[in-house]
Amino acid sequence: MRNDHREVNQLREVTIETDYVKHPEGSVLISFGDTKVICNASVEDRVPPFLRGQGKGWITAEYAMLPRATESRNIRESSKGKVSGRTMEIQRLIGRALRAVVDLDSIGERTLWVDCDVIQADGGTRTASITGAFVAVVLALGKLVDGGKIKKLPVTDFLTAISVGVLPDGKEVLDLCYEEDSKAHVDMNVVMTGQGEFVELQGTGEEATFSMPQLQTMLSLAQEGVEDLVKMQKEAIGNWAEIIEKAQDSEKK
Amino acid sequence: MRNDHREVNQLREVTIETDYVKHPEGSVLISFGDTKVICNASVEDRVPPFLRGQGKGWITAEYAMLPRATESRNIRESSKGKVSGRTMEIQRLIGRALRAVVDLDSIGERTLWVDCDVIQADGGTRTASITGAFVAVVLALGKLVDGGKIKKLPVTDFLTAISVGVLPDGKEVLDLCYEEDSKAHVDMNVVMTGQGEFVELQGTGEEATFSMPQLQTMLSLAQEGVEDLVKMQKEAIGNWAEIIEKAQDSEKK
Amino acid sequence: MRNDHREVNQLREVTIETDYVKHPEGSVLISFGDTKVICNASVEDRVPPFLRGQGKGWITAEYAMLPRATESRNIRESSKGKVSGRTMEIQRLIGRALRAVVDLDSIGERTLWVDCDVIQADGGTRTASITGAFVAVVLALGKLVDGGKIKKLPVTDFLTAISVGVLPDGKEVLDLCYEEDSKAHVDMNVVMTGQGEFVELQGTGEEATFSMPQLQTMLSLAQEGVEDLVKMQKEAIGNWAEIIEKAQDSEKK
Amino acid sequence: MRNDHREVNQLREVTIETDYVKHPEGSVLISFGDTKVICNASVEDRVPPFLRGQGKGWITAEYAMLPRATESRNIRESSKGKVSGRTMEIQRLIGRALRAVVDLDSIGERTLWVDCDVIQADGGTRTASITGAFVAVVLALGKLVDGGKIKKLPVTDFLTAISVGVLPDGKEVLDLCYEEDSKAHVDMNVVMTGQGEFVELQGTGEEATFSMPQLQTMLSLAQEGVEDLVKMQKEAIGNWAEIIEKAQDSEKK
Amino acid sequence: MRNDHREVNQLREVTIETDYVKHPEGSVLISFGDTKVICNASVEDRVPPFLRGQGKGWITAEYAMLPRATESRNIRESSKGKVSGRTMEIQRLIGRALRAVVDLDSIGERTLWVDCDVIQADGGTRTASITGAFVAVVLALGKLVDGGKIKKLPVTDFLTAISVGVLPDGKEVLDLCYEEDSKAHVDMNVVMTGQGEFVELQGTGEEATFSMPQLQTMLSLAQEGVEDLVKMQKEAIGNWAEIIEKAQDSEKK
Amino acid sequence: MRNDHREVNQLREVTIETDYVKHPEGSVLISFGDTKVICNASVEDRVPPFLRGQGKGWITAEYAMLPRATESRNIRESSKGKVSGRTMEIQRLIGRALRAVVDLDSIGERTLWVDCDVIQADGGTRTASITGAFVAVVLALGKLVDGGKIKKLPVTDFLTAISVGVLPDGKEVLDLCYEEDSKAHVDMNVVMTGQGEFVELQGTGEEATFSMPQLQTMLSLAQEGVEDLVKMQKEAIGNWAEIIEKAQDSEKK
Repeated sequence: MRNDHREVNQLREVTIETDYVKHPEGSVLISFGDTKVICNASVEDRVPPFLRGQGKGWITAEYAMLPRATESRNIRESSKGKVSGRTMEIQRLIGRALRAVVDLDSIGERTLWVDCDVIQADGGTRTASITGAFVAVVLALGKLVDGGKIKKLPVTDFLTAISVGVLPDGKEVLDLCYEEDSKAHVDMNVVMTGQGEFVELQGTGEEATFSMPQLQTMLSLAQEGVEDLVKMQKEAIGNWAEIIEKAQDSEKK
Repeated sequence: MRNDHREVNQLREVTIETDYVKHPEGSVLISFGDTKVICNASVEDRVPPFLRGQGKGWITAEYAMLPRATESRNIRESSKGKVSGRTMEIQRLIGRALRAVVDLDSIGERTLWVDCDVIQADGGTRTASITGAFVAVVLALGKLVDGGKIKKLPVTDFLTAISVGVLPDGKEVLDLCYEEDSKAHVDMNVVMTGQGEFVELQGTGEEATFSMPQLQTMLSLAQEGVEDLVKMQKEAIGNWAEIIEKAQDSEKK
Repeated sequence: MRNDHREVNQLREVTIETDYVKHPEGSVLISFGDTKVICNASVEDRVPPFLRGQGKGWITAEYAMLPRATESRNIRESSKGKVSGRTMEIQRLIGRALRAVVDLDSIGERTLWVDCDVIQADGGTRTASITGAFVAVVLALGKLVDGGKIKKLPVTDFLTAISVGVLPDGKEVLDLCYEEDSKAHVDMNVVMTGQGEFVELQGTGEEATFSMPQLQTMLSLAQEGVEDLVKMQKEAIGNWAEIIEKAQDSEKK
Repeated sequence: MRNDHREVNQLREVTIETDYVKHPEGSVLISFGDTKVICNASVEDRVPPFLRGQGKGWITAEYAMLPRATESRNIRESSKGKVSGRTMEIQRLIGRALRAVVDLDSIGERTLWVDCDVIQADGGTRTASITGAFVAVVLALGKLVDGGKIKKLPVTDFLTAISVGVLPDGKEVLDLCYEEDSKAHVDMNVVMTGQGEFVELQGTGEEATFSMPQLQTMLSLAQEGVEDLVKMQKEAIGNWAEIIEKAQDSEKK
Repeated sequence: MRNDHREVNQLREVTIETDYVKHPEGSVLISFGDTKVICNASVEDRVPPFLRGQGKGWITAEYAMLPRATESRNIRESSKGKVSGRTMEIQRLIGRALRAVVDLDSIGERTLWVDCDVIQADGGTRTASITGAFVAVVLALGKLVDGGKIKKLPVTDFLTAISVGVLPDGKEVLDLCYEEDSKAHVDMNVVMTGQGEFVELQGTGEEATFSMPQLQTMLSLAQEGVEDLVKMQKEAIGNWAEIIEKAQDSEKK
Repeated sequence: MRNDHREVNQLREVTIETDYVKHPEGSVLISFGDTKVICNASVEDRVPPFLRGQGKGWITAEYAMLPRATESRNIRESSKGKVSGRTMEIQRLIGRALRAVVDLDSIGERTLWVDCDVIQADGGTRTASITGAFVAVVLALGKLVDGGKIKKLPVTDFLTAISVGVLPDGKEVLDLCYEEDSKAHVDMNVVMTGQGEFVELQGTGEEATFSMPQLQTMLSLAQEGVEDLVKMQKEAIGNWAEIIEKAQDSEKK
């Protein structure tokens, strides 16, 4: 049995609150159990130097934790004067994942800045960030559509992320909380589209290894979790969901 | 008339939500109108090098804004690799103010880390931070008392902060929102105890100056605001309020 | 009695030596007792990015201490790779204060860089810096007038700064030396114009508080000190004094 | 057909030259085609603070490229004053991978510093680094055994890494060179033990996604590549190979 | 007798391998005994801001050591976030020296980036760097000539560098290895042209001093070493040697 | 004729004012013409980590310029967040030079911090710094002797520095002012003891070279300058001069 009595394939309670902060074009507070992340998407009317003059857009993400989001307080990265390797890995992952489902050619020379700020952490902050960031991005792009700045929602599919892992007893489980995560032998983050395609797969043995059958089981669990998350995203984004479903269909053809 | 129809001596709606984040010893979400700040107080069982071996404690504060707490997105200080002068000024102010009402000799060799993270900004973030941080500190110190680590609540008085200013029409007003603040000729932050003593006074003419009578009027407005804020702090901290009131009395004698 | 036998309302010996360094447009060595600061004003023929194309100028200040200006040696900020919060606060204060008495619209797209470098410190370095920087700025602007680059001296009033405080015995005093400052319960810096208007007011209780009557007494002392300092500034700037006095008069009308 | 006429499951020419630099305890120059990496393993007789007093060791890795290892010159990270996110990701990966096959409890309070310096880059620098670093680490640990500092080679299995990917024509291929890598739709790095267990799996769609069948094909290709690389590692480490094979056997039981 | 049995005026074995790395326009691996340095020259089609629009070029050099080039491992300068004083001194020296023999007016608005990366260090890394960098620069400039981008090789003379010193027994010697260098009382680096003119002279007493006669002896030894090094450079650069010799002749007239 | 009508072997007016700043153990204001440098020597009762427990001392130097010491204002190194290569070179040079004439074994585990701050620059700041720093160091060490902390003045000889160079007309000159220095073909700094031994020799051709006869002439000029400087140092240090002269004599034997 898992320490919080969940089934191996059971997500923690997930909630998505939209329009959480008033200034950003898209703003979401997402919770995966006790993990809470504010995901804000901001639109800037220019692109980084390497893209200028090409008529296409960009998405970049930043990730941070409040110092006391965790059990013991972390030193602020602004005080240390540099961003940790872990933070860099996560923000690169979030940006790359979002770019896989947004048609950057259709948003003009604009940058979407996606800020994922963890206010309370209990495992799975990067997967919650991606899942919430997708919603914030759809809302921000929706505002561009509503404002007549772009013609149609340039989103080709849903995008969610979930963690899977192998516990010390050898059991594969879905959506690890911090207590599970800190003991797990294998930790894997899976980023998938609404149609079940992989966008990112990052599995790590923690002073341990994993076999092909274990990999298969973990990927099946991930697939189950993703389906549930897509449902919640659809509710959060309202009418935009239908437009993304149509985009999925046209992709299939 | 003020742009949000308030009287010159009227605060915006102020709310204080305690136990907002689960890990910190004291945690508060405070709102002054649309300004929202998470104030977390963390207890660390050691002091900075300059205090070691003296048997007394320390309080230090850090302040930050989410990048999109404001109308347009700010670059993260961790990305810039350094903390701005404005941030430094504010966090030094918060720490100094709190140290004026906490008896550092009575908390043992412990550091209270106070993190004020602005998630939505609309003027007055530093005064909201101080007012909320005081509540978070009382709750954290209360836990030390409840856990038997210190004998009694080492807080000598309430502590609140409020802004006052002079608008372009020459009118002195209390608790400026961002729209007022950005146009004001004079901007003053007043940090006061529950008994109406000054802890900090910082007044600045913005390419302008102010006279002694204007100063007097602003200080009176501040005093009115402080009384209201202390009432809200008392509600937020529950039973601890009575103990602080007793401390006030003994100070007076 | 004060440790150096001064009256409570008595300044230390103040001297202002002009043209101290040969390269800057305005250069002053100012002493407040044993506190000695070189104040250099440099003219640069462009403004920071946020002001370009607006036809107006800017004043910015930097402040530093020689490592051994103080009793024990401080690590150089260039070696530490970052500027301390204290330094930032002071240089922001100096710049803001100067901008209050210079008509930035009348100096064209130019930046005045004001460098205050403390070569010997004995308390009151920031107030000496402001008082000396004003003289350096007038001399630099005077050179622009003499060189035909601007039409008239764009200075609307004198600008001086002085510290006041409350000593442990409860006595309010003017112009604290280091020994007094390090023990004072209250420390306040007052920046005033020649006409007695406030430009900045920064009062701080050091693990202490202060009452309204104490504030009043301190502000009176400050006003006395300011009058003396203005006299010395007038001597230092020679003929330019008369022009500033005329500007004062026209302001009053 | 691939641009360099290789089969889809064919490695580039791989060479491993041992004792390349004279000072390090283990030193290797590894080539995967035109990709050349110096892998040096250094032994330090202490561990990082978080491990002190626990009697166990640590492995940490650093990765860098000479500025002109690539087609166009890169700015040195020491000149920029910070390490890029890409570099951090790679060096964290190398360290984590090596720690999975070395028994850190058996090396005493020592740190193995593994430096992977790319002197010429043509794709696959991180996989070449891991494959070469394993050899350097075995040689360094072997010296500790030979010097009587530890009792037996604390290596539980071989460790190799290889890249696989999906080319624009939809073909899955092994060991991508730079030209292939820069166009690939999917890029995956697989770190495996000699017994075919996964240590790390990192697959990324580059503005694209991949399906479960594509994943399966890529993992099979990786497995083929790994077998070849293990053979070359065995040659490079000589007699130590036998000892690792015995460790593999005892792991299986 | 010297610890490696050399005569006082004898160089260590020097080898120069050209085209060592494939991407740079000029690439050399140079060895002075066990000191091995990769010298890469890269051509960039623009100049630093201070030279723009003047129609002339620039040469800049960077120097680094692999962390384990030395007996004990050094912390990477990219990890420290700053470049040491020693590194800065050396790279400024290399750049200045090369600029003395290249006619910058004849290379157009181009920058030659010269990277000297020490992969194994045994004393004399800066002199090996300069000697090797000269060859890399000639090869890179030769490519510009061959590609028709500049008309003729803009190199006015050969450029070599060698160390001399005074050992503890008072003996002056040429080309000190690390063991000698670490004990030497005087350490001098001499950069000379093929015609025996000085480009740089840097002599340092290490908690010691040296007399005029000692200086004379050291300079004579340096001159002998330089002649040998020029011969090796001529071999390495092939036909370009003749062109430089002609340039020497025309300089003399 | 030189632009300021000096003879080729004539120093600018040199003055040395002792006890310039009150806090440091040794403090000097030295002028070489319009070049003015404050040299402060501070005693710290501990040594850097690499020397701890060896019973010997250390001397380290730092060098900086006020931003407007020069014709046009320089950005402060503390604002840039890093120290330039030029600054590093100079401060390493100053420290090394001083260590050559102080017997570090006789000062106990103490560090002498020497701060050379240029308040006005007109060429030759590093040679003025060394010449002034020597006096500050003698005064600081003298205080240690007077205070009974060390037995005798641990200074083995005088130490001065002077620049020489070759002007565009081919003339060798002593003590270049800025106007000469900026045009010179060769620039050489010579650090010598009172007995005429070399401590440091740094000669640089600025896109030019120099011959052995030119070197000889420059070194003769330097020797003349050094004799004059030693006389001024003797006056500045008073009675300590005699003790150093005795140390010179005992060295000779």
